[in-house]
Amino acid sequence: MSEGILIVLSAPSGCGKTTILRQVMADLPGLSFSVSHTTRQPRPGEVNGRDYHFVSHEQFKAVRDQYGFLEWAEVHGNFYGTSRQEVDSRLAAGADVILDIDVQGAEQVRRNAQPVTVFIAPPSLTELERRLRGRGTENEESLRRRLTNAKKEMQAADAYTYLIVNDRLEQAVLELKSVIIAERCRRRRAVADAEHATV
Amino acid sequence: MSEGILIVLSAPSGCGKTTILRQVMADLPGLSFSVSHTTRQPRPGEVNGRDYHFVSHEQFKAVRDQYGFLEWAEVHGNFYGTSRQEVDSRLAAGADVILDIDVQGAEQVRRNAQPVTVFIAPPSLTELERRLRGRGTENEESLRRRLTNAKKEMQAADAYTYLIVNDRLEQAVLELKSVIIAERCRRRRAVADAEHATV
Repeated sequence: MSEGILIVLSAPSGCGKTTILRQVMADLPGLSFSVSHTTRQPRPGEVNGRDYHFVSHEQFKAVRDQYGFLEWAEVHGNFYGTSRQEVDSRLAAGADVILDIDVQGAEQVRRNAQPVTVFIAPPSLTELERRLRGRGTENEESLRRRLTNAKKEMQAADAYTYLIVNDRLEQAVLELKSVIIAERCRRRRAVADAEHATV
Repeated sequence: MSEGILIVLSAPSGCGKTTILRQVMADLPGLSFSVSHTTRQPRPGEVNGRDYHFVSHEQFKAVRDQYGFLEWAEVHGNFYGTSRQEVDSRLAAGADVILDIDVQGAEQVRRNAQPVTVFIAPPSLTELERRLRGRGTENEESLRRRLTNAKKEMQAADAYTYLIVNDRLEQAVLELKSVIIAERCRRRRAVADAEHATV
């Protein structure tokens, strides 16, 4: 069995990443999410090991200090991290693992592994603003903050392997699926090489 | 407008390359074939500039001696070549250009340009033999020759970016389409970089 592919997916909020990802995972077998570790309290309905691995600060720091996270961050006093062991065991089982993380997280994963990285961008900042306003869930201040963040994050798009512009949802879904299928064809070549080398 | 992608496609004969390619070109707009130069005589029905650029030996050699071919070969006393100018003008017009050439031709193109290379392999040599016999168009000697060639060509698969195994036609078509769409997402990233750099 060949090892799976590690895929990092980033997008400014409002770019439709969650919708795209949900559809791609429904269409394409063999994809799996990594379950993150967090020190925050479970919310009602959240299941340990499914939504998150809920751990204490001490447990989190013990893993972190042994370089056990591919990436981690502190948000509002809580820690979040992607465990290397969790990801490696899925990859070893042949699953392709998707990490849905921000540009800082992606940068850390790049230092610790060889991920395929995909950035999803809005067609333009104007269009992103229109979409965020359309949700009607944001006040003006939070909307401004999201747009400023989006602008900053889009400058990090250079470092990604693939750029998907979510202009039409259907096309963006096709593109993300294509990236994964194409990467499997690259991987297959690499595996054929390895088998060839052992003959 | 962004420049197109140069795609080199190779496969041992009997691997279904022509069928796969025909379906991919029907499904995916923006793909174009390069018209080869040849010194052989046109066959009935062949149109100059559509099927081949039919040229004299002198004309062919003049282009070749100015390194005007991305790849060329002599077959049974006739010359065949892919003109750099022909390919470049299509790429410049934004078309993705597919070169359907053998492993030696692919090796030459790799030295002269930066193509994306795709190798289509049969599931196994046994299956390839079954398919070639199924055609019923070959005598035993020609069949043996094709199988020996296929074996040799498959050793060159290592040098290709992508490996597609034509086990089920539908899946092979999906994979070639995915490779092209994914490469467009890579190219888009590169173009975004370039635009970013000029700001």
